[in-house]
Amino acid sequence: MTTTDTLDPLVWDPYVRDCPTRALLDRIGDRWTVLVIGALADGPQRFSQIARRVDGVSQKMLTQTLRALEADGLVTRTQYPEIPPRVEYELTAVGHTLRDPLRALEEWAVTHMPAVLAARAARG
Amino acid sequence: MTTTDTLDPLVWDPYVRDCPTRALLDRIGDRWTVLVIGALADGPQRFSQIARRVDGVSQKMLTQTLRALEADGLVTRTQYPEIPPRVEYELTAVGHTLRDPLRALEEWAVTHMPAVLAARAARG
Repeated sequence: MTTTDTLDPLVWDPYVRDCPTRALLDRIGDRWTVLVIGALADGPQRFSQIARRVDGVSQKMLTQTLRALEADGLVTRTQYPEIPPRVEYELTAVGHTLRDPLRALEEWAVTHMPAVLAARAARG
Repeated sequence: MTTTDTLDPLVWDPYVRDCPTRALLDRIGDRWTVLVIGALADGPQRFSQIARRVDGVSQKMLTQTLRALEADGLVTRTQYPEIPPRVEYELTAVGHTLRDPLRALEEWAVTHMPAVLAARAARG
């Protein structure tokens, strides 16, 4: 067991107040992270391709999401020295490990949307 | 394939701009949802028990999270006619189906926290 007093980097626990896994949960559970990681699942993509796949994402939000994923080592950004320069985003090995859990979330949302809407409607 | 123009309630798709699964993803990926559903995994709990398990959650945030989960039909709130009144929160059948995907997220965060911290440190 961990407590806030004995936070041990080897015993991460998001139930503990200051554990950094809690902020990481926010990051990976974010709707844009889920969709961007999903968009990158099949291979490297340019910014414009991701933006098309994640319908309606703003340029600002997509930039912010990709930068955060880069900072966390989940996505790489590669600039190819061409004219005009080509920039591609790609999941890292660690980023790939996130694909299955996030796909499960996506599938849960799609499968249970009717039940959730029914529950909301029942409450009026 | 769905598009925003042909949004079909039978074909939910969070990659489509106005699909309600996108907002549902936000809800279920939220750190407090993940931890509260986790806290309720082993059976009904009182507010104070959940608050203790989810170390550091504010009363306001916990109330808000539980109400949202209730509204979506994922958690029930039962008040027992005792003195003092006892109130318990419990996962519904649908709420239980969310447990595995959210546990996978939790486990991902715990497992990959070191890699993410190393990536952040490497960028200085």
